[in-house]
Amino acid sequence: MSTITASADPDLLRARLQRARHAAAAQGADALVIAPGSDLRYLIGGSGSSFERLTALAVPAGDGEAVLVVPKLEAPGYSGIPLDALGVRLATWVDGEDPYALVAGALGAPSVVAVGDMLPALHALPLRDALPGAAQVLAGPVLRELRMRKDAAEVEALRVAGAAIDRVHARIGEWLRAGRTEAEVGADIAAAIVAEGHAKVEFVIVGSGPNGASPHHGLSDRVITTGDVVVIDIGGSTAEGYNSDSTRVYAVGTPRDADVADTYAVLLAAQRASVEAVRPGVTAESIDAVGRQVIADAGFGEYFIHRTGHGIGLDVHEHPYIVAGNDLVLEPGMAFSVEPGIYLPDRWGARIEDIVVVTEDGVESVNNQPHELVVLPG
Amino acid sequence: MSTITASADPDLLRARLQRARHAAAAQGADALVIAPGSDLRYLIGGSGSSFERLTALAVPAGDGEAVLVVPKLEAPGYSGIPLDALGVRLATWVDGEDPYALVAGALGAPSVVAVGDMLPALHALPLRDALPGAAQVLAGPVLRELRMRKDAAEVEALRVAGAAIDRVHARIGEWLRAGRTEAEVGADIAAAIVAEGHAKVEFVIVGSGPNGASPHHGLSDRVITTGDVVVIDIGGSTAEGYNSDSTRVYAVGTPRDADVADTYAVLLAAQRASVEAVRPGVTAESIDAVGRQVIADAGFGEYFIHRTGHGIGLDVHEHPYIVAGNDLVLEPGMAFSVEPGIYLPDRWGARIEDIVVVTEDGVESVNNQPHELVVLPG
Repeated sequence: MSTITASADPDLLRARLQRARHAAAAQGADALVIAPGSDLRYLIGGSGSSFERLTALAVPAGDGEAVLVVPKLEAPGYSGIPLDALGVRLATWVDGEDPYALVAGALGAPSVVAVGDMLPALHALPLRDALPGAAQVLAGPVLRELRMRKDAAEVEALRVAGAAIDRVHARIGEWLRAGRTEAEVGADIAAAIVAEGHAKVEFVIVGSGPNGASPHHGLSDRVITTGDVVVIDIGGSTAEGYNSDSTRVYAVGTPRDADVADTYAVLLAAQRASVEAVRPGVTAESIDAVGRQVIADAGFGEYFIHRTGHGIGLDVHEHPYIVAGNDLVLEPGMAFSVEPGIYLPDRWGARIEDIVVVTEDGVESVNNQPHELVVLPG
Repeated sequence: MSTITASADPDLLRARLQRARHAAAAQGADALVIAPGSDLRYLIGGSGSSFERLTALAVPAGDGEAVLVVPKLEAPGYSGIPLDALGVRLATWVDGEDPYALVAGALGAPSVVAVGDMLPALHALPLRDALPGAAQVLAGPVLRELRMRKDAAEVEALRVAGAAIDRVHARIGEWLRAGRTEAEVGADIAAAIVAEGHAKVEFVIVGSGPNGASPHHGLSDRVITTGDVVVIDIGGSTAEGYNSDSTRVYAVGTPRDADVADTYAVLLAAQRASVEAVRPGVTAESIDAVGRQVIADAGFGEYFIHRTGHGIGLDVHEHPYIVAGNDLVLEPGMAFSVEPGIYLPDRWGARIEDIVVVTEDGVESVNNQPHELVVLPG
């Protein structure tokens, strides 16, 4: 059984739906079909989980009526969504009926249907068969234009999530010490992510010693020892659905590697420089370039092996991506991570990550824990 | 950044992959393409999250080499997977390369490609374009034949998850009392789900008073009052990836509705009868029918508005479904929920849920908290 949380100002949502119709038409699509998940939550203020039964929002690009197709059993969960105020008709179905025909019926005879990026093949394939005359394209390019420009309520939701994960980082010293495994420390962190104000744990990375040199390391049974440098990258989602994501680096006692202090100073300078470069009117790739240059100038260029950041909001990873080649011009309300790293294979690694929001004249960070290496008792 | 957990006996996984090839061929598919998630975890013992970059396991139905296509950045996360022992080649790609061409190249010129049910449209559509001569069908029917027959390690993993959620139910009295909102109680339960041994909270339903009459109600700001009947349906996933899911019903003080005791007794008898009917050789629908008959005989048939249960394992909802029309014959190792409910609109509701496993000669329940209505201090 699934949990549906509604949080919605109807005027705001109606405007989002209208913008989505226009954006779809502008991109040549006759309709949008959106499955449960962050896109649906963005458009109607709430979303159930997507299970084996189809739930989908069908939105004609023009003036036609939008329809939310929901299994009858799950319809009560959407009772908190102001569908009438949004001009969305509810269409329920029961086992034995064909929900794909319901969607097709709501859309008439479209030539191009943009399906949500996260619509699973389980539903995308039968929908294709129910609309044999329509080409399926991805709705991602439509939705991203809307979702990457956060409104004031969304920015506040990111602040709340950011403060919650900051409180977890402030408590790492309670759990991280020599003799414990990464998995044991990670379990304590996971509990604290929820206790400090998230509804769900999204990810917990505790990369100790050489594991810190793998950016996507999760948890392992490696026992932490005195002298380890430990990368802790953690995040959760709040009841409103907005995500936190912040990385800090800890040392358990004095780092055993003599190059930690100097190398960390380079990374810190790079992360600060990238954050300080954020403002409206500059490109996403320029933020990447600023920090990358600092790291390259110090001779560590080959050890910074990923992009600088990713957008964040209702998804942990969304647009805009802060990466070479992305000439998107930043605008107020765009929110993303700034997380350069230096990874020394088989030895140690470090990454510093804040979520920042572009303001009218600069940048606001929703993460505000100190950025320095945190040296804990060994 | 994502967390990848590996847990794998190579011999077991190799046998699963081999069975998947055979099942694909038997169903007329030339290849399987499996995205991160429970199917991938089942086949190779671990899975990262699915983000915007393609990760996919491409498996020819015949003797061809299986290939795991992974973004280079995420490849270290799969280092704990015994790919060599499984006969799976790792193919990494970096931004700017075409991962769909890598998958297509691994498959030759298939006529029919079965894609995992959870492959998002974001990847299914470009893959379709990369293999224009191949019809896409769903891999679900192939994978379900394997996944719904749990081996001993999987059953043990379900026992571990079941015991963890039982410990949470045993503590509900710490948090559930008059004057608190469902959301407040739910937050405490969520923290306990993690604290008692899950890696993630999957869902928390606290349906108090009339909210209990909506099977898919989640949490709300309704203040719980003395006399409420409260349905608590909760679950999480363990580090191994296996899910718990159990429902018990609580009363805060003496129930205000005079019909609670008698109606609950009917539900309890129905749930016990369905559980006791589980054994190899009977059909899935027969388990549904047994409890439904008990409820109908007592005059509540119209208030039991959903199927009796769903399979569970690496997904919260998977095959087999315990529902009228499903004539699947139960076999040892099949695991599913037995969760009849009675929902009295605008008044109160109740549901009792255990996860059970079909044994060689009967049934084992992985949930073992008492099934009676738990009356807490008002």
